[in-house]
This record gives sequence, C-alpha cells and structure tokens, in this order.
Amino acid sequence: MSIKITSKDQVNQLLDKYDYFLFDCDGVLWLGDHLLPSIPEAISLLRSKNKQVIFVTNNSTKSRNDYLKKFEKLGIPDISKQEIFGSSYASAIFIDKILKLPKDKKVWVLGEKGIEQELHELGYTTVGGSDPDLISSGVDFDSNDPRLNKLDNDVGCVLCGLVFNLNYLKLSLTLQYLLKDKKTIPFIATNIDSTFPANGKLLIGAGSIIETVSFASGRQPEAICGKPNQSMMNSIKADFPDLGKTPKRGLMIGDRLNTDMKFGRDGGLDTLLVLTGIETEENVKSLNENETPTYYINKLGDFHELNN
Amino acid sequence: MSIKITSKDQVNQLLDKYDYFLFDCDGVLWLGDHLLPSIPEAISLLRSKNKQVIFVTNNSTKSRNDYLKKFEKLGIPDISKQEIFGSSYASAIFIDKILKLPKDKKVWVLGEKGIEQELHELGYTTVGGSDPDLISSGVDFDSNDPRLNKLDNDVGCVLCGLVFNLNYLKLSLTLQYLLKDKKTIPFIATNIDSTFPANGKLLIGAGSIIETVSFASGRQPEAICGKPNQSMMNSIKADFPDLGKTPKRGLMIGDRLNTDMKFGRDGGLDTLLVLTGIETEENVKSLNENETPTYYINKLGDFHELNN
Repeated sequence: MSIKITSKDQVNQLLDKYDYFLFDCDGVLWLGDHLLPSIPEAISLLRSKNKQVIFVTNNSTKSRNDYLKKFEKLGIPDISKQEIFGSSYASAIFIDKILKLPKDKKVWVLGEKGIEQELHELGYTTVGGSDPDLISSGVDFDSNDPRLNKLDNDVGCVLCGLVFNLNYLKLSLTLQYLLKDKKTIPFIATNIDSTFPANGKLLIGAGSIIETVSFASGRQPEAICGKPNQSMMNSIKADFPDLGKTPKRGLMIGDRLNTDMKFGRDGGLDTLLVLTGIETEENVKSLNENETPTYYINKLGDFHELNN
Repeated sequence: MSIKITSKDQVNQLLDKYDYFLFDCDGVLWLGDHLLPSIPEAISLLRSKNKQVIFVTNNSTKSRNDYLKKFEKLGIPDISKQEIFGSSYASAIFIDKILKLPKDKKVWVLGEKGIEQELHELGYTTVGGSDPDLISSGVDFDSNDPRLNKLDNDVGCVLCGLVFNLNYLKLSLTLQYLLKDKKTIPFIATNIDSTFPANGKLLIGAGSIIETVSFASGRQPEAICGKPNQSMMNSIKADFPDLGKTPKRGLMIGDRLNTDMKFGRDGGLDTLLVLTGIETEENVKSLNENETPTYYINKLGDFHELNN
C-alpha cells in the first residue's frame, strides 16, 4: 500500500530518510510553461537540508542548456547542468559511451534541436533534425524530390525522438537510413512515451512517431534511452557514485507510473507519485502491490506548504 | 506451383478462361508516372475480346476521377469510372453502406484530396484533410495552438489514409477525435500498406502513418477498406454480379503477394503476379503452396508482346 504524504511529520521523515531527490519535470514542477504552486520553495527547502536534487526528463526536444534557461525563467534558482538528465543527453551519452560511434560518423536525427545540441557537445555531426532545408513547404510531396536521393554515407546511427516539425520527407528519409546497408545502421530512440499531456490534452509522443518508421522499416529501436530504461539511471549513478552504492537513499518523484515510478523502482530507489500530472488517486488505489509507488502526495509543493 | 506465362498459347488460354481481369495499378500498369511497356496494347487486346477490366488500387490519395485523368494522360484509352475501385472510394462506400453514418455527421480525414472527393460525392462533409488552415507553416509547434481546442462535435467518423501533407498538428488533432467521447467515434483505415515503391525506393505508406495515431490512442482501426480486405471485393462483386456468382471467371493481377494476390485468392479468384513491381521470381519460387499465385509473368505487356 502506498503511503499518502499529508503532514509535516511525514515530510520531515522523508527529509531524514533520503539524500538524493530525483524529479521528473513536466507534471511535477510545471505543466508546459505554467509553474506549479510552491515549487521554488520546495526545492529551496531540499537545498537548505543539503539534499542533492537531480532532474530527469524524457522530453528530448530540449537540451540541458535549454532546461537551465527554463528553470531560470520559471524562477527555480541555482540549478546546475550536472543536475539535469534529459533523454536527449542520455541518448548522446549512449551513442558515445555504449555504442562507441566514432566521431567521424554522423548521426541522422529525427527530432528537435535539443538532440542536436547534446550530440554536438560530444563532438558529433548531425544531419536531418532541424535542418531548414527539410522543413515542409506545405506543397504536395513529390516522390521525385531530389532530397530523397541524397543520402549521407557517413551516417552511422539513426536517433529518433519527439519532433514537432514533422513532415513526410523527414519520415521517408529516416526510413531510407533504417533500410540502408541491409538495415545495419543502429536505430536508437530517445524514449517511447506514446503521448504527453499539454493544456489538459494528450498530444502525440515520441513513441508514436517512432512507430511510423519502425512499422515501415520492420525494425524496433535497439536502445531506448529515456525512462524507464536503466541506461539513464546508470548514467546518473555514474555521476553520483554514493547513490549507486546506496540507492535506497534516493527517492524518485514523478507523475507517471509506467515511466517515472518504474524507473525509480527498477533502479532500487523508493518512489513518490505526485497527482499534478497524468495519474489520479483512484488509479493509485487500484494498483497491484508490485506496481504501487512507495508514497504519493497531492503535489510536490506540499513539501513546503505542509512545513509552514 | 505457379505457372509462368511465357508463350502466345498460354496467353490465349488465359483469354479463354477468364472474363474479368482485375488489375492493381502501381507496379502493374505504371511505376509512379512512368507507363510500363505495351500496357495500352494489352488493355486493348482484352477489350477486343470483350473482357471486363477492373482497376483496384490501395492508393487513397487519388479519387476515381483523378485516376480517369491519369489513365488518359498515360494513354490508356476508354476507361470508365465504374471500372475503378480505389481505397478512398471503398472507404467512402464502407462509411455509407456498412457503417451507415448519417449524412449530417462529418468525417475527420487524415489524408489527401482523393478521400475528400469520394466522401463529398456521397454527400458527406469532411473536416481536416487538405484544409489549408492545417498545413504546417514550418514554425515550431505550440501546444497552446487554438486549433487544438476547436474540435467539431459533428464529427462521427475518423478516416485515415496516406497523407503527404503530414504534420504534428494533424496527427494530434486526429488523436483528439480518436480519444473523444470515450473512444467511441469509429476509426476507419483506407489501407494498411507499410510502404510503397517509388523511383526504386520504399516510401512511408498509409499503414505506417496510421500506426502513429493507433499507438497514441491505444486503438486499432475497426475497418481496413483496401486490399486484401474483402469489403472492397464485395463492392466489386456487387457492381459485377456475374463475377460474384462465378469468381473463378475472374483473374486478379498484381505485384504484391500480401495484398493483391491475397485479395484475389480470398475472393475466390485466380491470381497472376507480375514481376514489374515489388516481388521477384526468386520470391515466387520460395513460397509455400498455399501462398503461390496461380500464374506469374514478367510483365503485363507480355499479353500483347507474346501475341505478336
């Protein structure tokens, strides 16, 4: 049974029990561009107790630098780049450290600038992505389009994530690379969330876009770098070795059972579900024992509000 | 074992044995905008023997009127609208006759003008589709986009097919209709081909695009109107009752085993595979007995060339 956090004493017990507080961002700290109540105060409370905060997001459209700007803009102070783990960063790290793609190989990106920026920081050249030559002009697609014939033979990896500037040309070019060289170019996904919530609606997620090129090519991504995949957790533990040694000193806080809570649980951490995102109290109460988060709370800001 | 058609005698036996010649178009008559050799002559030969020709295509981007123009432009004479069955037409017929959608209900279209034209001919109003207000401007998608909030409450069916003017907004709007009213609005697909061949490449097919909204909504299309689905065959048999009574007087000619040949076989017709499209002679020889076409031929134009 999940414990609901509703009192100052319970909050203080959490502060005693955990040293590492890992947060999902959208649905926990903010909804889109709207900061949730008492978030800066809750983060400041953790800082004042010398807790390590770590932000873990599956949104691949932003780089860590983009997130720093967003934290600042929303008035959440003193966050450092080392505390941010996004699926774009996790994917770049995966391609570099696990796949060991040589730096003279290029990465074909079906995705936004966040992915490109993280790959560029590690010294990779990207093609596709936000290239303005690939933006749809709104005119009819022509199967004779010369851009379909100009495949870059230096491409050594295909990385797919959420893409708002989606068009038929980009999807068909991604398919060419997935079929090229007898389907041997590695196929990596930032994350496979089917949807994401925005302004009370569900919009198309990275996982749904990846289904298109996956079905067309008859291939599944060979690696999925976002939550709940543990390659992201392993990167975090590599950067914070004490968390790696004693994961039970860490608490994963998020709004999704199948990504955030599973991510924390699979990594050996305790978990706290917030009800400001996609899940409801009713959902939590109907879960099987092995799926329940350790705790749940109405909102993260209650860390601060219950303490006053 | 498939019989390979290589002689004048064999062609004449086919002309004796069958009254109805059903053709797939792309890969059989033409490749994209390039007419294959001796096609007008082969069709004329069939006409001269008083054979009924019927054209059956899964390409939903064109209406029957568009196909008439294409036949004329490529120099294939005297084709009538009643001889053309496209997946856009089949879908419109399905929505009207099987789904019995009232005419005051609208159809949300994820697709091109071919679909809209067939629905309009049957008296339906469409939304989405080629609406110029939904064409991507190439700027970043904004989750506050007011178009996401303007759902049309008269929409009573979602029809998805191949869409070249694809963008994130159209996919996300399709998702809203698939989720609306507790997922009760019928979800129809023109066809589910994963890819289609164009200029020696495979491009993204309708089925791959439908995977996106299917995965995001957690729904599968309730009907698939293109080949090999038999609702298209039933429409053809309804229009040509003698074929319905004696399907063995019909020969389905196509370039794809899993759509064209299956479509003919499931409908009780004999089948002829041409090697001008997606399949090879090697593929044909490696098939199980229950998958083999009745016959195969290098190209449809051999009907004419072998006869001279």
